Amino acid sequence: MAKIVRANTNIALIKYWGKADEALKIPTNSSLSMTLDNLYTETSVDYQSELSEDVFYLDGIQQTGKSLERVQKFMDYVRKEYNVKEYALITSYNHVPSAAGLASSASAFAALAKASTLHLNLDDEALSRLARVGSGSASRSVYEGLVEWEKGKDHETSFAKPIPNSDWPELRMVICFVNEEKKKFSSGFAMQETSQKSAYFDAWVKQSHEDIVTAKKAIEEKNLNKLGTVVQENALRMHASLMAVNKWYFEPKTIEIMNIVETLQAEIPVYFTMDAGPNVKILTDEAHVDQLLNHLKEYKTMVCKTGKGLTVYDEL
Amino acid sequence: MAKIVRANTNIALIKYWGKADEALKIPTNSSLSMTLDNLYTETSVDYQSELSEDVFYLDGIQQTGKSLERVQKFMDYVRKEYNVKEYALITSYNHVPSAAGLASSASAFAALAKASTLHLNLDDEALSRLARVGSGSASRSVYEGLVEWEKGKDHETSFAKPIPNSDWPELRMVICFVNEEKKKFSSGFAMQETSQKSAYFDAWVKQSHEDIVTAKKAIEEKNLNKLGTVVQENALRMHASLMAVNKWYFEPKTIEIMNIVETLQAEIPVYFTMDAGPNVKILTDEAHVDQLLNHLKEYKTMVCKTGKGLTVYDEL
Repeated sequence: MAKIVRANTNIALIKYWGKADEALKIPTNSSLSMTLDNLYTETSVDYQSELSEDVFYLDGIQQTGKSLERVQKFMDYVRKEYNVKEYALITSYNHVPSAAGLASSASAFAALAKASTLHLNLDDEALSRLARVGSGSASRSVYEGLVEWEKGKDHETSFAKPIPNSDWPELRMVICFVNEEKKKFSSGFAMQETSQKSAYFDAWVKQSHEDIVTAKKAIEEKNLNKLGTVVQENALRMHASLMAVNKWYFEPKTIEIMNIVETLQAEIPVYFTMDAGPNVKILTDEAHVDQLLNHLKEYKTMVCKTGKGLTVYDEL
Repeated sequence: MAKIVRANTNIALIKYWGKADEALKIPTNSSLSMTLDNLYTETSVDYQSELSEDVFYLDGIQQTGKSLERVQKFMDYVRKEYNVKEYALITSYNHVPSAAGLASSASAFAALAKASTLHLNLDDEALSRLARVGSGSASRSVYEGLVEWEKGKDHETSFAKPIPNSDWPELRMVICFVNEEKKKFSSGFAMQETSQKSAYFDAWVKQSHEDIVTAKKAIEEKNLNKLGTVVQENALRMHASLMAVNKWYFEPKTIEIMNIVETLQAEIPVYFTMDAGPNVKILTDEAHVDQLLNHLKEYKTMVCKTGKGLTVYDEL
């Protein structure tokens, strides 16, 4: 029986937004994330000599079309890179709402990178590089807690690693669900439109470099106000760079929640971030979660702590 | 009896956003506007030798504090510039909701510029310069229809003028009221924060120069799709430049209306713009107003045509 790999998703605190290399997903800027503890993908890869192509089941449903193709393309890369000869039966269960800006591809490809190479016992850096080829943000889901993906300049140098001494058990990410349906357009498309056409893209990249430095300093100091401020500003700049090409993920409720958080900021440390989608994630700490939730009673929420990196277990 | 000057407000199609000179309101980029036909300010200025300071009534209420000070400061400028010796009784009626991003200061200072200098019979360029000193966007309300404010480089060279051959009687601006209360923060403050701190400000200025060229070309061709596209993009870039400094005017209903307009764009020529405030203005033409209004039944709206420049009449 194939072993099962669990990968948690992660939320970027400093966003990955723009590719220097589309195929290998080398980014234009470094990013920084928090791996979450209860949104994850579980995947097993069973290589079978009798298969004539990869077969992929997601949440119990055999996949076809683009969903299958993306996984097959990744598996082709694994076969080529690691000299694997067989096709595989891939079984995945997603405990993340798909395609609504909750980065399900991050946990999906991190789990798949590990599950497809279990026999090779790759180190974390190699797994992070491999996961990146599947989905950029997956490079970060290899690790627990707070993680930095250094942009690097090629396949060898572009991988994530844990931020040293970043253990911060009081940190919380409150996910506020605005819309769990498929997003208006894919993050890949939005990123490409922005990097190719936005008047603000160059400034976004430049400012991101500074934001990473600020965020790492804040983490070193365990300074939530400092970290939250740069996290919120960075998210707004990401969305602003997209808005400059006449596209937006905001929905009315996104603004409602942004306004609630902004008002609360006068009293408690709460800071929002949004990925490529309308949902809002709110960074705070354990001591302030209840007060925050009191103001979000109208919304479906989920409170996350920092979560583990990749874990492997036998099927029960 | 003092004569009355009526000035219509105007909506910027390409936004004024950033000052190169704060005191004289010399902008960092040229802007382009549509003077509207039924949102206006009526003002009379009665110089009286017995007054020891300017007295200002707005909508029947004697003003004090900042509202009075801004008008007195403007009148001081007029006295100094044109060697006027007396203080004045200034009476104004605003037929524009104040301070909710509908540019009431544009019509207010255009009317005041003319009413305070009636005896001097200034030409339109001089009036436009003078109005600019009161409020940048007021420089454009001197004229009817479609107007360009060339940024210039100093007081002499920074003034608005009509766009040649821009007569376009079918053009309509549908104002969609989201919130008629005082805006979250003043446009002057927002502009200053953006120009001093936004990572996107330089790119905003650079792109604006191109947007002006595109908009003027579209007006020359009477091409509503081309004009509307650049109008909407320019507005989004203005708001994005502000968002990059962690500030926004958007309210949930702003996004609601943006989404309605975006959906309608598949069928009819409708394009939104927002000034420093949450209200949405929708550019379209006479033939498509009814269909647009059908989709905006939940909102308070007002349909405007292009309006006249300054007009002077005797009190009835």
